[in-house]
Amino acid sequence: MTIRLFNTLSKQKEDFVPTTSGRVGMYLCGPTVYSDAHLGHGKTAVAFDVIRRWFVYRNFKVRFVSNITDVGHITDETSDEGHDRIGERAKLEQLEPMEVAEKYMWNYFHDMEALNVQKPNIAPRATGHILEQIEMVETLIANGKAYERGGSVYFRVRSDPDYGKLSGRKIDELEVGTREDVREDKEDPLDFALWKFAEPEHLMRWKSPWGEGFPGWHIECSAMAIKYLGENFDIHAGGLDLQFPHHEAEIAQAEGAGYKFARYWMHGNMLTINGEKMSKSKGNFTTLQDFFATHDPMVLRLIYIQSHYRSVAELSADTITAATSVLSRFRETRREFVRKLELAMAGHDAAFEKKIDFARAQFETAMDDDFNTPEALAALFAMTKEFNAVAITNNKNSLEMGLETFDMLAGFVFGLFPANTSQATQGKDGLLEGLLEIAIEARKSYRLNRDFKSSDALRERLKTLGVQLEDTVDGTRWKLEA
Amino acid sequence: MTIRLFNTLSKQKEDFVPTTSGRVGMYLCGPTVYSDAHLGHGKTAVAFDVIRRWFVYRNFKVRFVSNITDVGHITDETSDEGHDRIGERAKLEQLEPMEVAEKYMWNYFHDMEALNVQKPNIAPRATGHILEQIEMVETLIANGKAYERGGSVYFRVRSDPDYGKLSGRKIDELEVGTREDVREDKEDPLDFALWKFAEPEHLMRWKSPWGEGFPGWHIECSAMAIKYLGENFDIHAGGLDLQFPHHEAEIAQAEGAGYKFARYWMHGNMLTINGEKMSKSKGNFTTLQDFFATHDPMVLRLIYIQSHYRSVAELSADTITAATSVLSRFRETRREFVRKLELAMAGHDAAFEKKIDFARAQFETAMDDDFNTPEALAALFAMTKEFNAVAITNNKNSLEMGLETFDMLAGFVFGLFPANTSQATQGKDGLLEGLLEIAIEARKSYRLNRDFKSSDALRERLKTLGVQLEDTVDGTRWKLEA
Repeated sequence: MTIRLFNTLSKQKEDFVPTTSGRVGMYLCGPTVYSDAHLGHGKTAVAFDVIRRWFVYRNFKVRFVSNITDVGHITDETSDEGHDRIGERAKLEQLEPMEVAEKYMWNYFHDMEALNVQKPNIAPRATGHILEQIEMVETLIANGKAYERGGSVYFRVRSDPDYGKLSGRKIDELEVGTREDVREDKEDPLDFALWKFAEPEHLMRWKSPWGEGFPGWHIECSAMAIKYLGENFDIHAGGLDLQFPHHEAEIAQAEGAGYKFARYWMHGNMLTINGEKMSKSKGNFTTLQDFFATHDPMVLRLIYIQSHYRSVAELSADTITAATSVLSRFRETRREFVRKLELAMAGHDAAFEKKIDFARAQFETAMDDDFNTPEALAALFAMTKEFNAVAITNNKNSLEMGLETFDMLAGFVFGLFPANTSQATQGKDGLLEGLLEIAIEARKSYRLNRDFKSSDALRERLKTLGVQLEDTVDGTRWKLEA
Repeated sequence: MTIRLFNTLSKQKEDFVPTTSGRVGMYLCGPTVYSDAHLGHGKTAVAFDVIRRWFVYRNFKVRFVSNITDVGHITDETSDEGHDRIGERAKLEQLEPMEVAEKYMWNYFHDMEALNVQKPNIAPRATGHILEQIEMVETLIANGKAYERGGSVYFRVRSDPDYGKLSGRKIDELEVGTREDVREDKEDPLDFALWKFAEPEHLMRWKSPWGEGFPGWHIECSAMAIKYLGENFDIHAGGLDLQFPHHEAEIAQAEGAGYKFARYWMHGNMLTINGEKMSKSKGNFTTLQDFFATHDPMVLRLIYIQSHYRSVAELSADTITAATSVLSRFRETRREFVRKLELAMAGHDAAFEKKIDFARAQFETAMDDDFNTPEALAALFAMTKEFNAVAITNNKNSLEMGLETFDMLAGFVFGLFPANTSQATQGKDGLLEGLLEIAIEARKSYRLNRDFKSSDALRERLKTLGVQLEDTVDGTRWKLEA
């Protein structure tokens, strides 16, 4: 078995060969915590969560590092007399950027919990690694790769002939973009800031060899990835929008400081809403929290998984309906299959096992080939088809093997059945399921007594509560609305 | 209204006068995240959570800061050749202390969530504030309060004539305790470390003016409290076990660096188990997670609240039974009262409102007097008595006022009805309650049809599921086992 992945750096699929046998070091660019995460953030997070889980499935020990960008650019606008004025004011009356960062960081982790995204092994915060960033900037200055001007330090882009190798851009074709890029004190408008001089109204500030300031945007990831994964680690991942300039700058910084840095670069594609890119100006900007207020987070997770991580995922009324139906099918099939399993007698069904093994192999082949989740999903459909078709006989051992396989792939790798969901919909210790069975029996009893009025009333009552009943030859089944 | 609190520094109750009008800055010593939190940690956290909530109830804007001590003392025992040896090893093969810290930090926050302890506004991590700590140590050296020896920096205890003022100890009577205290390179065995030289096998280490090392235990709280609350803030809180030497050292450091520091010091007392102090050697050491595996976290929260924060709380089979029964009474009374309220017609009941107001005043007086939670709890009992006694008439407005008051005091201030609990026991959108009503109606219908066998079977079935039925003149009531 070899995992192949598309390396943005080489622009081709490569065999994954770890730096340290049996281990994977993986860095994912995390959120900036000064606003709530939106549907696009969720896609990146879920994409690399599934990839991380696949490495675990393939018996790698993974160290997954994902940063929190909490260096805030919040300024005190009530201050027109500079820094001393701020110093004099009661600390408690001041806006404290860290309090804002902390709030949104918690919101982010709650959103991730709702999406069943596993926590990073380390979630380093930019403000918690100022020393490491200063140290790296000092090294870059010593190596002639950076220079100080007016309390800020800039990276000398033209000193790096390789600059642009990730995004495929050429230095001479780079355009000078933002206002900041044309600051007059830079040697070259292309140079980017490693450390920024803090204007008096800037609230987050640290002492440095260049005076009070704060780190530039790119340096934190270079410094923290190396600190926790080593100077030549396996995978650096992030959203496609970060490829340039952020990741390009990360490479330039790390290599300029004398490190080899990441060996594989992976980028997740974006999410569109009704075919359009999400943006505040288009009015289709949706936070995860807003979405979760009216939708099951697992529907969103499934929408992400239904497209390949390098493809665009589309969110629309249609894709929501489709994903909801797939999710219900998985949940119901699994529940009914558990019921079958409980009724079955010990014994094997070689044909059934063969079909499950075949589907599992199909899933594995798809995932080993650059994490092809849509193809892997097809294998899960094949599996549920077998679950529905299989008869209850003396085949318990085979059914158990089938359930175990399904739970490993749909449950663990795709993460579609989080413990939370089942608690929320099932209550404590099967209480909800027990009560539903009592209700179904009561309805049966009403019908046996030809009390159809009570029977119909009960059915309506359940419907109001979000429970649908379906009468089948095997008895009445229940289904909770998503 | 004035809140009075016992200031450990003055050893008496004082009026609380905030530094900044309408605001409270509060620092609580948080956990060391290299093992799971135990029942004692829970007591301190809940005690100051209730106090924080009381300040909010009294219309203060609170900034609550509680640190995470993640400076690990984990060493690499496989290294016998010193630091260079470590440097050569693959980063991923090394134990990464931050990974361990991160794991236990999450466990801690989950425990706190289970106990319904509100998150700090800022939870600063010691490793995230190395620069600030180094800066404070530099100031102490400059002020003649500290000196460097062999890469470590020590605080000169005898330079501070006030040392001991919090704990009431006199410098000349202090005993030299731990092995570390008698290190030969110190001027005086009493001196404590502000910065420690990192031996080669020490994994967490930072560059400093004194070489590679890591901060001493006490300096983080002085530095972070001042950073986020200002140099003269309101309240510094912690467990009684931290009064000496930790808090004494914090005061010495802050004052030595030229700051006024905390104005009120508050200490929470410990928890005993069956009358004994909890300790690993006594075998009665219980983590919060272990306790929650078999008990409702709210029972523990109530046990903490039933004793005053400056008193010892006792955990035993008896106190667990008692707290469980109180909690059930609160939950049931509230549920039945909501039912009454729904049946009542618009109108007022002056006598009822007067009784509720009286109980509320009793609660407020108790809490304003150094947060006397056991007395405040008595006021809640008085309130539930009125809830049970009041008849359903045209008194809906008064009942609503009663419910609002109870929810504010028992729900918000004491935090006894977290949203999580109700989700876990009630399911989505009242689904569980709806199903229980269906079950109760089914039983009624069986009985009307004289089908006592089905009726009894249903009752037994519910009992198995943890639901108890009680037939009253007003109909059948249900109760979930705690």
